[in-house]
Amino acid sequence: MGLVRKNILSLVPYKAGKPIEEVERELRLKNVIKLASNENPLGPSPKAVESIKNNLFKINRYPDAGGFYLKRKIAEFYKLNPSNIVLGNGSDELIDIIIKTFVEEDENIITAEITFLEYSIIAKAIGRKIYLVPLKNFRYDLKEMMRRINKKTKLIFIANPNNPTGTYVDRVEFENFINGLSDSVIVVLDEAYDTFIDVDDFPKGINYINKKNVIVLKTFSKAYGLAGLRLGFAIANKKFSQYMERVRQPFNVNYFAQIAGIAALEDKGFLEKTRTTILEGKYYLYNALEKLGLNYIPSVANFILIDVKMDGEKLFKEMLRYGVIVRDLKQYGLNNFIRVTIGKKEENEKFIKVLRKLI
Amino acid sequence: MGLVRKNILSLVPYKAGKPIEEVERELRLKNVIKLASNENPLGPSPKAVESIKNNLFKINRYPDAGGFYLKRKIAEFYKLNPSNIVLGNGSDELIDIIIKTFVEEDENIITAEITFLEYSIIAKAIGRKIYLVPLKNFRYDLKEMMRRINKKTKLIFIANPNNPTGTYVDRVEFENFINGLSDSVIVVLDEAYDTFIDVDDFPKGINYINKKNVIVLKTFSKAYGLAGLRLGFAIANKKFSQYMERVRQPFNVNYFAQIAGIAALEDKGFLEKTRTTILEGKYYLYNALEKLGLNYIPSVANFILIDVKMDGEKLFKEMLRYGVIVRDLKQYGLNNFIRVTIGKKEENEKFIKVLRKLI
Repeated sequence: MGLVRKNILSLVPYKAGKPIEEVERELRLKNVIKLASNENPLGPSPKAVESIKNNLFKINRYPDAGGFYLKRKIAEFYKLNPSNIVLGNGSDELIDIIIKTFVEEDENIITAEITFLEYSIIAKAIGRKIYLVPLKNFRYDLKEMMRRINKKTKLIFIANPNNPTGTYVDRVEFENFINGLSDSVIVVLDEAYDTFIDVDDFPKGINYINKKNVIVLKTFSKAYGLAGLRLGFAIANKKFSQYMERVRQPFNVNYFAQIAGIAALEDKGFLEKTRTTILEGKYYLYNALEKLGLNYIPSVANFILIDVKMDGEKLFKEMLRYGVIVRDLKQYGLNNFIRVTIGKKEENEKFIKVLRKLI
Repeated sequence: MGLVRKNILSLVPYKAGKPIEEVERELRLKNVIKLASNENPLGPSPKAVESIKNNLFKINRYPDAGGFYLKRKIAEFYKLNPSNIVLGNGSDELIDIIIKTFVEEDENIITAEITFLEYSIIAKAIGRKIYLVPLKNFRYDLKEMMRRINKKTKLIFIANPNNPTGTYVDRVEFENFINGLSDSVIVVLDEAYDTFIDVDDFPKGINYINKKNVIVLKTFSKAYGLAGLRLGFAIANKKFSQYMERVRQPFNVNYFAQIAGIAALEDKGFLEKTRTTILEGKYYLYNALEKLGLNYIPSVANFILIDVKMDGEKLFKEMLRYGVIVRDLKQYGLNNFIRVTIGKKEENEKFIKVLRKLI
């Protein structure tokens, strides 16, 4: 294909978690449970659903290109100004917007070797160099990342907590890191899983946006249960957000995402129930895995990386036949691992039951 | 802002049509009518709405990354293979995907000077050169575009019908043009308004995808009334679509857009009613404009470009105060024009009544 750009020819597409319908269709199963994509097991925020239900017939109109009401609501929630917020079709799209806004063709990006894959895929699709720094004990190695920075480094992506490990960069590490950075480097802190954190030394990105070149990414896909609607946002200083707004396509965030986002932020009860479910599920799973003699990486997110002492892809496929969808980590070279999303009580129990049978 | 890319500093954002809520909020009006964004005045496809209503609680799950059922349905509808289809978050996003897939950093793009603005905005955001060729008698000047092609030209965007003029490139012109192109050039035919065509010599892009380097863009935003959901698609040969799929973000099309798209394609009655409403409205408006002594550009789309013989932006603002939103064309340098979307009978009548008062 001489017509295709060179960097696209070698691009490996993202491998999504298998949808429930696809597994049920392919394996002729029913009641399949999905613990593969870190979704909210309780469903979507009921207030968000109610809001959509009340506005079903308005979708012939384009969404508000400025996201006026949603940005105002998010700003209120975080005690910021609406001009600090940039909305995205999921935070995936914001990764693209950030790279386009800040990284020149001869500049480069740094992230971890084992982290959310979209940083690399999107950087390569745009045609930017991205350097991957190995983890150390399954954690971001910020010291090594600092060493890898050169004069052409513009952007650093840090998933905090990290996916697929569930580990986090703590406050001291993070502050040492950003204090050592030159003013020509921007750090993107991806806090997709911030709701599930149960430690005290987590550095909240929002505290740094006006002190350093820090941009924070957040999403409605996890805690608010709106993955299907696609809604993420960036929090940044006003100068950064103003230029990101120029790159953002005007109708990138659909109408339902905008109204559901507003309603979800008011759904405090749902958020609390989600958090409780995940934390209870986490300690149940920790305990059950220990009984099975399996090592896992302690997590501050809604998923757990487990060393299954066998081929993870094989286990993934065998679990499918029992109607349980998890993720293998072969694409990261973690051949003996799976990642399981923390589900509802009965889902966690089924997962453990099937796991016990297969290992 | 030394941190921002140079080409972003000069980027002028897209100016969207004013939302009804914004006008009602700012001017304290009620019953405002919007004839500014070429939306479907009849609302969304009722079958699409029904489908969403029946699946409200599924949005905690990520959408199907492959768009399996929607692609199959679109393929059926157009008698193609699902592998000919690439889904986008509106066709806006497909413009971005196409440029990223095919246009190298030193290559260029050609389109018309007065056409859909997103071609230019997106090309510049990615950092690609785009050359704009003036229209001739409000129509794409394909002969001049052919002359402007150089060795580094990779992509040509043709909006057919064109927005904001409503004119079209006819079959003979188009075939002469593509037959004269070298194999290193790709033509993107944007057929957002194809439903409203009432002429016999319109070249259907789909007939060319396997003969020439032609990619067709279509949308659910206009005829199907789903602008708020964001759903567009590209039709291309399998080689092209395969590489575009690598660049596409996995969850770019939200779940509701996917199921609504499927339902809308089955809603033949709604499509027919929409087409009849637009064609009747068009001839009513033609007639009324002639009675007012105003020139207009004959249109094969669901909008009409009108020479109002006065400052179009001023007229736009005055019409707002009467609760009618149209578009001025100042950003195109068409200072004495407005573009009006064809609405329902009563909306068209209100538009004419207010126009008569103000000119």
